[in-house]
This record gives sequence, C-alpha cells and structure tokens, in this order.
Amino acid sequence: MKLIREDLLSDIALRIESVRNHMRDMHVDAVLVASNANIFYTTGRFFRGYVYILLQGSPVWFVVRPQAFEVQDNVVGIRKPELIPEELKRLGIPLPSIIGYECDDLTWSDIARLQAIFPDSSHVNGSGVLRAARMVKTPWEIGQMRFDGIHQAEVYRRVSRCYKEDMTDVEFQIEIERILRLEGCLGYIRTSGNLMEINMGSVIAGDNADAPGPYEFTMGGSGVDPSLPVGANGTTMHRGETVMVDVCGAFNGYQTDMTRVWRIGEIPELAYRAHECSRNILRECERMGVPGAKVADLYDKAVTIARNEGLSQYFMGHNQQAPFIGHGVGIQLNELPVVTSRSRDIFKENMTIALEPKFVIPHVGAVGIENTYVVTSSGLDCITEFPEEIQEL
Amino acid sequence: MKLIREDLLSDIALRIESVRNHMRDMHVDAVLVASNANIFYTTGRFFRGYVYILLQGSPVWFVVRPQAFEVQDNVVGIRKPELIPEELKRLGIPLPSIIGYECDDLTWSDIARLQAIFPDSSHVNGSGVLRAARMVKTPWEIGQMRFDGIHQAEVYRRVSRCYKEDMTDVEFQIEIERILRLEGCLGYIRTSGNLMEINMGSVIAGDNADAPGPYEFTMGGSGVDPSLPVGANGTTMHRGETVMVDVCGAFNGYQTDMTRVWRIGEIPELAYRAHECSRNILRECERMGVPGAKVADLYDKAVTIARNEGLSQYFMGHNQQAPFIGHGVGIQLNELPVVTSRSRDIFKENMTIALEPKFVIPHVGAVGIENTYVVTSSGLDCITEFPEEIQEL
Repeated sequence: MKLIREDLLSDIALRIESVRNHMRDMHVDAVLVASNANIFYTTGRFFRGYVYILLQGSPVWFVVRPQAFEVQDNVVGIRKPELIPEELKRLGIPLPSIIGYECDDLTWSDIARLQAIFPDSSHVNGSGVLRAARMVKTPWEIGQMRFDGIHQAEVYRRVSRCYKEDMTDVEFQIEIERILRLEGCLGYIRTSGNLMEINMGSVIAGDNADAPGPYEFTMGGSGVDPSLPVGANGTTMHRGETVMVDVCGAFNGYQTDMTRVWRIGEIPELAYRAHECSRNILRECERMGVPGAKVADLYDKAVTIARNEGLSQYFMGHNQQAPFIGHGVGIQLNELPVVTSRSRDIFKENMTIALEPKFVIPHVGAVGIENTYVVTSSGLDCITEFPEEIQEL
Repeated sequence: MKLIREDLLSDIALRIESVRNHMRDMHVDAVLVASNANIFYTTGRFFRGYVYILLQGSPVWFVVRPQAFEVQDNVVGIRKPELIPEELKRLGIPLPSIIGYECDDLTWSDIARLQAIFPDSSHVNGSGVLRAARMVKTPWEIGQMRFDGIHQAEVYRRVSRCYKEDMTDVEFQIEIERILRLEGCLGYIRTSGNLMEINMGSVIAGDNADAPGPYEFTMGGSGVDPSLPVGANGTTMHRGETVMVDVCGAFNGYQTDMTRVWRIGEIPELAYRAHECSRNILRECERMGVPGAKVADLYDKAVTIARNEGLSQYFMGHNQQAPFIGHGVGIQLNELPVVTSRSRDIFKENMTIALEPKFVIPHVGAVGIENTYVVTSSGLDCITEFPEEIQEL
C-alpha cells in the first residue's frame, strides 16, 4: 500500500514535469487548475479547489472542500479563491507574470473571477497546456487503463448471459449495467465539454443505430426520452438485427472505450462484410499508429479502405455520418487526439486512443469494433482484448 | 398524442414569456441560449445549437446537430455560430443591442466565441435570466415532476427487496439502480456547474455518512474510488446502522429528489429522535413555504428546531456540515432557490424545491427525510409521497 502510494507520487511528478514542458512551449509561467479532471490529473486525487503550478517548486494545493484535509507542506485550506494571492505571499511563492487558466473547461464567470485575483498578471488560455500533457499517458495512467480494459472485457464476456428473447434494448442494457457495476465500474462517464450526456453507455439495436443525435457520439441512438437522446430507445430486439454494445469502462478515474456487436439470428452478408472491413481498418491502423505517424493518416486510410470496399455510404453512420473514427481517452472519454482528417497531431509513445470504425446497415443495425490502444514503438497495443467476431445472442 | 404536443407548445410559450419578463427586468433585449438544460427548457427538446430569443417574435432555433431536423418556420440549420448574424439578416430579424449569454453555464472560450459574432452589441451575463425563469415551473413542468415523484416512490417501495444480509452498500445500490432503470429512470442526473459528479445517486451506510466530500451534496460518502468520492464506499452493512437511500428521480428530463432511511436491526434512540426532528422540520417548512415567504426563514427555522432538540452537532453532517437544507430542482438537480440563511429569494407559487434536513449520528449513520415540493398558496405540496418512518431491512 505504501509502495503504491510512492509509485503514485513519483508518477504525479512526471505529470507535473510534462505540464511544465508544455507551459514552456506555450510561454506560460503559471497555471491555476480548477476543473475536476485536471485536479485529478495533477494531484492523483480529488478535491474542490485550485492547484497552482509554477515552472519550478512544488505545486500548491488550495483546498476549499473537503474542509478537513490532511496537512501536507503544499496544502492550504481556503474559503475562496480570492485568498490565493495572500497565501502565496505568505508562503514566499511568486505571483504569476503570465498565468494560464482553463478557459476551455471552466465557465466564463469562473474564469472572470479567477482573472480578477491576479490583476497585474497577463491572462492566457491554459487549457491547451493540460490537454497536451494529458494526451501522453504516464506509466501509472497506462496501468490504470490496462486494468480498465481487463475488467471491461470481463464484462463483455458475460454480455450474452444478459439477453433473453423478446427483451427490449433498454432491458438488455439494464442487465449489462448491473454486471458492469458488480465488476467495479463506477458507472460515471467523465466527458469534456457539454457535447456529450450519457448514463452508462449505449446499447443500440437495429435501426436505432440510424437515428441522428445531437451529441458527438459516433453512433447516436434516439434514447427513450427527448431529454436524453442517446442510446437504447426501448425497441424490442428482432431476429435479423444487430445489437452494438458500447458501455462504460471506467473503473478507477480512467476508462477504456470498447464496442462489440452481437446478432439475433442471421443477418445479411453485407453486415458481415462491413464488420470485417472495420476489423481490417483496425489492423491497418494498429500497424500505422507508431510514434511520428500523423493521426490524420489513420482517418484517411480508414476512409479509403471503406470506399474501396464500396461501403462509404454506411461508414460512420448512414443518415448522419461522424467525421472521425477515434479519439484520445483517459480521465475523460473525449481527449486528444481526435482521429479526423483535419487533425494535425502526431502520434507519440504512450498516447492512448480509442478507434471505432463503425458502419450502419439500414434495417440491420450497427456493426464494427471499437478498441482502446496504447501507442508503442511497434504500433498500437490493444488493451481491450476480446474476440471481435459478431457473436450470436 | 397531438393534444399532448399542443399542450407542450403552449407550455413553451409560457416559458418564453417568463424568460422575456426576466429579460425586461434585467434590461436585456436578446438572449442566445446554448446550454443543454436551457435549450431543453426553451424548446422542449434537445439539439446541439442555439436559441435566439428577442423580446418579441418567435425564438429562432439554430440547429448544428442533428443535421437532419424537421423543417419549421423558426428552424435554421447552421454549421457554426458565426453564421447566425447573416441568417438573422436574411430572416429580417434584428441583431441584438444588449445580448445576454449564459456566462455561468458555458465555458469562457464558448462565450468569447459568441461575443465575437455580435461585435456591435453590448454583452451581459444572461444566465440569471434563464435561472430566474426556470425557478418557477410551468404546468407541464410540474406535471412532469409529479410523474417523476410517483415513479421514484414506486421504486422506493421496492428498495427493501433489493437487500440481502451481509451485502455491501455498493451491491445494495446496484440492485436499486436496476429497479430504478426498469421503472424508466434515465439513469442520468443533470446538474449545473462542476461541483457535482455522481452516477445514479447515493446509498450511504453507517459511518460512511460522516466522510467529508468535495462535492456540494449534503451527505457525501467517500465512494469506492478516489476519482469519484461520493456515495457508497463498499462497506458491508452492519446491524445497528442506518442506510440512507438518495437515488435518481429523473424519468423525463425533469427529476424529483427524495431520500428515505432504512435500518438493519435496532438503532439507538438518538437516531430515531433525530429522524423525527427532520420530519418536524419538514412539517414546519411545509407550512411556512407559501408565496411571499422568505426562503432563508425556512433554513433559520430548521436550524432553530435542531438546536432546540440539542441536535445541532449532528445537523446536516457531523465532520463536515452543509450550510443549506434544500434546493430548487427541475431540469437540473441543483436549481434555485438554495435554502440557506443567505438566500434572498422569496417563494413564488409553482417553485419546486427539495428539502433535506438530515442528521449524521456517529457510528450509526445518516437519518432524515428528503422530499420534493411544489409551492402552492397553502404551503408546500409534497410530490414524493412515501412513508417517512425508518424502515427495517
């Protein structure tokens, strides 16, 4: 236990060093972190407050809640952020000259309040600093995600047992949610921005895969209520249709993202062919995804493979097509890089990405695979290992 | 079905009228709505985009996603918000002179982008306009919340069947989550701000009630993982302890908030006494909560009743005490008013609030009741009806 804690502390030191490298690149001499995801990233734990990071010295944790917090050298309890400057002076820590705030993560009002406490500093958007640092995972983070992948796969192994004939997709999803939670899934998908709202993932049967949604998920589904238009829509699952299972892999503050497809009875040849095309795309991407490769090249390759197979009209949706085939994943479901043709990102070792080349076959449903990968010197290493064939329910 | 849709349309007209009244009060001549909750409030549905509301004329919906959207008079498909001004010109709709943005709801970067598209307008924080409007519910909204309360109570009726001896609190919660979902619960708690992260609610057994949390929940619980420090913590439920069940009441875009307490075996007299004190506080508040009454008076009354019973040290927590006993609830879990001593809000008819005077008894657990109410001319009308006594598991 002690050992693990030491490991975490040295891992956090790596993260802070990475944050500082990006601060130097972006000419920022301090960042003030306040978003949940970035507090967790920079401290390994969770509190309501602020983390003040300079280019040197220990980061200072300003903790608002919980009120009782163990005493450490770098921890200061405060009631409100306006007290930060005087606490810094008391600690003999310099005020910032150019300070980065999480402008892409916090509300306008929160940022305006934080800007006011450092009136003599230059203010810049520091969200990119954290986003860039978090794009490349540390050893501890990768260990957490491997753990997630193992447990998520363990749940997928039991998915078929959740099915009973004439079930609705929602009933099926509820039984899957239960085994997820019993396996230790936290049941909460942490996302960035306000473009995604979801409970524990989506189970999409038949033509519901073709329902265009407002969120930035690859396959939407219409949901059961207009207030949460995503995922299962209460339809009874029919013979001749597929069911795509893309549910929560969050077991520890990190998460993996994984999709497999089941079928009820026989499905048309076209669906199998598209599913195999998805697997071919993954195999090609796994090979291409080495450090130094362009992220956009994977997207372009995927589009080319789908087109060469004559499957373009079904690729990444049919009624509404998503313009990406994958995304970074970690503390949040939607991290960098985004695997799209417009990406300018270059693969680096220890990035973690989910790739999800999927197809929607009208009157059949969604097919295709999603895996989460670690970028290694020999290509993408899959951490969501589970048979990829379409399985019968 | 047609009738219901007409009802919704006329209800939305009431909401827009309420928004406009608050726009006049706050001297704003346009608001541009983009947050999920406020798009749902002002349109009754859900899309990714913007709703432009002037003091007169139909609001215009600028829809980014889904790409396919039914054609209506006031619906314009756009790729990006920068196209809004030219579309307004095309429609002959005036550009704003003073425009309110959701500065408390959207990120700094989102607001900066929106401000740039109306360079000749004055920009103000319009979040308060929407928050004030949403504080008083329309007939349709109250109908939705009554529906939530009925279904949430139906689930609570079956809670005791989820229990098996020597279960952990998490296992108990998982079975409760399952029956919630089977009852139609969407499984997603929509909150405002970044001060609350939770999956489907919290089940808190024994001393876990005393774990101080970072979030703004009244009773925290430490959770099973440091990344989501809320709720059940994996402890086995013991005889002589209470289990507090405070789980998701979201069945339709609205939600009710409701807590009941179960016990395992016998618990000390002090716990019963505190529980009865909670009920006495509720009865007093139900009487006091008439239109025109001060919200803060309910808080002060609750504190006084707890003090007179000699229970102050247990009230609203023991290690860490919450400074409020209730909150508005509706589309989001944490709406206005906040029932705290500092509130300046005055009750109005058709506000909906959750009141949750709770106590933490060391080595026993949490006790107390939470109900959701509608403010009526004769006081608070409970919409989460279910027996309030501590029940045995």
